[in-house]
This record gives sequence, structure tokens and C-alpha cells, in this order.
Amino acid sequence: MTVKSMNDLFLHTLKDIYYAEKQIYKNLPKMAKSAESQELKQAFEKHRDETEHQIERLETVFEQCGVAARAIRCEAMDGILAEAKEVMEEIEDGQVQDAGMLAAAQTVEHYEIARYGTLIAWADQLGMKDASKLLQQTLDEEKKTDQLLTKLAVANVNQAAA
Amino acid sequence: MTVKSMNDLFLHTLKDIYYAEKQIYKNLPKMAKSAESQELKQAFEKHRDETEHQIERLETVFEQCGVAARAIRCEAMDGILAEAKEVMEEIEDGQVQDAGMLAAAQTVEHYEIARYGTLIAWADQLGMKDASKLLQQTLDEEKKTDQLLTKLAVANVNQAAA
Repeated sequence: MTVKSMNDLFLHTLKDIYYAEKQIYKNLPKMAKSAESQELKQAFEKHRDETEHQIERLETVFEQCGVAARAIRCEAMDGILAEAKEVMEEIEDGQVQDAGMLAAAQTVEHYEIARYGTLIAWADQLGMKDASKLLQQTLDEEKKTDQLLTKLAVANVNQAAA
Repeated sequence: MTVKSMNDLFLHTLKDIYYAEKQIYKNLPKMAKSAESQELKQAFEKHRDETEHQIERLETVFEQCGVAARAIRCEAMDGILAEAKEVMEEIEDGQVQDAGMLAAAQTVEHYEIARYGTLIAWADQLGMKDASKLLQQTLDEEKKTDQLLTKLAVANVNQAAA
């Protein structure tokens, strides 16, 4: 980490979320495959498509900053996904596993909501209007995904698991 | 992880957030000590006091469930706090470090918001009304802390860092 200025901090955090998004993209198919609820499976599949576009948006922001897109290991996302993996591997009952995976997905979403909220505030502070707009599109999607998961949990998945 | 039912999953996640809260409680004084902004220092100190009560609430929920309060390692929180530590150790400029620490604290808050939201939904599903009420008190505090941090970032910390 060579962070001396606010601009460096912005780029460092951009690389962190770039790594996180790529890991999410890699893990979502496994989660979709494991899901017993069709609605949950579809939610994970839809979010994988969204994640692909979110990765492309980050690459555009790197371009706008004049630097090559590069991921740096994000220990937070590694930890969050390790917990999701544990749920998939160690809970045998499919419906209880669904409830656990849905909850793990919401910790993923909330990490992203925090990170994109920060990146937008920093982009605004640094006068990077185009980057701010692009990141806002992703933040809106993450919030919508989180709301969709909450709805699905309350209306369907938790009831089935209980 | 021996999770066979929704009740087991609730208890497992309670132990996960119990660990997380205890780690946060341990780390907040270091963050307060490192903060250059007086407002940020105070926000961390205030949240440490809140965290103490949040830990007590979790112990009450364990009691209500008739099991001993026990923490299990939460890899997500370990990863989140490792990133906060990196910010504290590797950014020399105090104002840029403040912006980074504030952002890290918001990833902590969002992890908690996701976890408490889930625990409340599960408590409701399992008919645990008293637990649900206690957990809701903590969720409200975490959301307020996150909003306070956003306000502080925009009005003060990010500007100083830029």
C-alpha cells in the first residue's frame, strides 16, 4: 500500500473493490448451483450478470484515472466469501442452507454498499464527476439486490427453512 | 459448524456476531488513538461505549436461548479489521489516514447491519420476540453510527484529506 494522497486512497480502494467484484463473479455460479429455492437461484444468476457490468464500469473508472485496471487482495471479501463457502459445504439441509447463503449474500452486498458509498464521496471530493456517476449506478444496483434478498428471505426462504 | 436447523443457524450467526463485536470493541481504542480529527476520535469513542452495551445485549439473547455465550471466529470481521489496521499502519498523512479509517469503520457498520437484519428476520420467523426487540435496538444504533460517519466524511474528513 503506497498511499500518500486522497487520490492514492481512491485508487487503492478501487483496486480493492475490483478484486472483490471479481471474486463475487467467480463465486456466484457455485451459490446459484447450490440454491434449492428457484427464486434464490434466479436472484444469484441475475446478480452475476449485473456483476459483469459492474466490473466493466470499474475498468472504465480506471481508464478515466489513466491507470491500468489492477486488483489487489481484499481480505474483507475473502473472509466474507469464506463464510459463504462454509455455509454451502457444511449445512446439509437444503432449505437451511438457502437461508444461510442468502444471509451471506447480504453481507457481500453490504460490503459493496459501504465501499461504493465511500468511493462516490471521494470521487465527488476529487471532482471526478464521470466516475461518481458510474459508481452511483452500481451502488443503486447493489441496494436493489439487497432489498430483493430481504424480500425473498421474509416471503419465502426463511419460512421454508424454519 | 454443526448446523442442522434454522435454530442452529441462528445460534451459529449469533456466535459469529458476538466474536465480531468483541473484536470491534478491542480495536476501536486504537482507531480513536490514531484519529487526527477530534470529531472522528469522539465518534470512535462513543461507538466503543455503544459496542459494550451491544455485547451485553447479545449475552442476554444467548441467555434467552438457554445456551452459554460463546464466540466463534468470524473470518469476515477479521478481514475487515485487517484492512483497517493496514490503513492505520501504512498511511503516513494523518488526514488521508482519517479518511481511510472512517471508510473502514463504515465497512464494519455495514457488516453488522447485514448480520443484525438477518438475525432479526430469523428471530421473528422462530417466534423469539424478546430477542428480536433487543437485536433491533442494536441494528438502529449501527444504522445511526453509519449515518453519523457519512455526515462526518462529507462535512469534514474527506475535505481535510483532499
